[in-house]
Amino acid sequence: MPELRQDPLSGRSVIIAESRAARPDQFSGRSETDVVVCPFCPGHEDLTPKASAVYPVGCNDDRWQVRVVPNKYPAVELNASGDRGEAAIGVHEVIIESRTHVTSLAEVSANEAELTFFAYRDRLRALSKDQRLDYGLIFKNARVDGGASLEHTHSQLIAAATIPTDVQCELAKAGEYRMLHGRCAYCDLIDGELGGARHVSETASFFSFCPFGSRFPYEMWVLPKEHCESFENVSDSGVAELAQLVRRLIRTLETKLDAPAYNYWIRNAPFRLSPHDDFHWRIELTPRMTRLAGFELGTGCFINPVSPEHSAAQLRAVVAEVV
Amino acid sequence: MPELRQDPLSGRSVIIAESRAARPDQFSGRSETDVVVCPFCPGHEDLTPKASAVYPVGCNDDRWQVRVVPNKYPAVELNASGDRGEAAIGVHEVIIESRTHVTSLAEVSANEAELTFFAYRDRLRALSKDQRLDYGLIFKNARVDGGASLEHTHSQLIAAATIPTDVQCELAKAGEYRMLHGRCAYCDLIDGELGGARHVSETASFFSFCPFGSRFPYEMWVLPKEHCESFENVSDSGVAELAQLVRRLIRTLETKLDAPAYNYWIRNAPFRLSPHDDFHWRIELTPRMTRLAGFELGTGCFINPVSPEHSAAQLRAVVAEVV
Repeated sequence: MPELRQDPLSGRSVIIAESRAARPDQFSGRSETDVVVCPFCPGHEDLTPKASAVYPVGCNDDRWQVRVVPNKYPAVELNASGDRGEAAIGVHEVIIESRTHVTSLAEVSANEAELTFFAYRDRLRALSKDQRLDYGLIFKNARVDGGASLEHTHSQLIAAATIPTDVQCELAKAGEYRMLHGRCAYCDLIDGELGGARHVSETASFFSFCPFGSRFPYEMWVLPKEHCESFENVSDSGVAELAQLVRRLIRTLETKLDAPAYNYWIRNAPFRLSPHDDFHWRIELTPRMTRLAGFELGTGCFINPVSPEHSAAQLRAVVAEVV
Repeated sequence: MPELRQDPLSGRSVIIAESRAARPDQFSGRSETDVVVCPFCPGHEDLTPKASAVYPVGCNDDRWQVRVVPNKYPAVELNASGDRGEAAIGVHEVIIESRTHVTSLAEVSANEAELTFFAYRDRLRALSKDQRLDYGLIFKNARVDGGASLEHTHSQLIAAATIPTDVQCELAKAGEYRMLHGRCAYCDLIDGELGGARHVSETASFFSFCPFGSRFPYEMWVLPKEHCESFENVSDSGVAELAQLVRRLIRTLETKLDAPAYNYWIRNAPFRLSPHDDFHWRIELTPRMTRLAGFELGTGCFINPVSPEHSAAQLRAVVAEVV
């Protein structure tokens, strides 16, 4: 049973989830012999738990394009009970982004990309109604150095009963900013970055740039230009527009960097914001060119060998060429 | 020139150090052709900047066993000046742990291990006298997944003009604990862990265990049993005893795990503690079996598939057999 623990000296949270040690790993030495059948490919639906959602909505196993299933090796569980620590209560799902066995969101069809982002929003909407759950994280690990253990392109959703400490800190800072300046910190950030040295790309409703404090080379953030607290609130047309932009940004990375490992995640608001809280969701997307090593683990500070200004200039040169 | 930046939304620090992009990488695809000469091997002393210390003290190039040199690709510099951010002021050194081209502290001689730890203490002592510097981190990245770019076993020291935010938080917590309980939080932690389910090994002066909130499988901490704020204060006999214990713990990991990538770092006090501050240094040592991926980057929370209780039980079974 997964357990949530806090380090008493730092306040840092960890989830101890021993069932995850049993999960298959297509990239380890074992892979070629152990994992010959891809559990995410069509025809193997019986290798995953029953789907919690399929897209197009209501279609059968012959026609799904995106499929959401409970994670067989969950980091959190609704019926978890703590042994030495607190129970790690929550829901852990996998979003299979394509019927085709490809390894990146860059390679799925435009339609599959859209349905994937609809799945993100709809599953967050559904889980946000569960009063036991307070926060939902959508994240994607692509390729070995991105932390993927299965090749077939997929993302994950972990909805948990606790709000991550990092999100709590950010909420406090955003609330403070609103109190001091009477405005949203993120809206002001966008105003300052649009058209500047770190600007990468924009669409009618979304803006992408390399953040001033980038941890990684070519790290990019995507924000809605209009103030929007929660990802659950994005409109249908917004979801479709965002999916195409994110797919294009990943294609840009893959054109520039030769099939890099990458991660993205949605820094979302908690499911229920209190009245004095402020937030403005974003996607953080980064290739994994550098490793988090002794310095990062020992200080919490990151060393980034490519400035966001240089990253953005290089990305701008590529993004216009990419469909 | 390296720059220190803060992300305005999270307060997270990053160092933008573009000169580091130029450093050689023996583990990349380029390695076999580009880096044929090891700059850390005897006879190649002219490939590194002039040594800031050698051990045995005062010996010449024919006889050094441990050699400390300025990092050719520094993440911080004493004469740094900020362009868009603050200047990342500091000193970045490399501690070459052996004359022999081996890839782990487990493979150096007992004497080289001791001299390496003397180098750690002595360089921290020397740099702590520089009023421009406030904090010194010793860290080691071993093997590719540990973040090493050169194979020859070495560690690093980054002394900087700022105290990492994580250390500031820990200082505040330790100070609070002292106020509330009248005792040192770390001494109490040791009392609670000695002989318990997470106990790994002990010597006359040091204690090693898997922490309750372990981020990684087989993560271990080493603390001095007697209260000791700064690593600079460790006695000569303590340094020698500690070096042998850490070498033994790494040998234990290598016996159990087949030459794993690993990191260790010294979580040390700032160079000048204020009177109401409390601290008790430790070494954090971990193999890198799991990857920091989207979930960890998106929440700051870690998922660990092996509990510290199971890790410690397995390590205890091996450590007794290892010299």
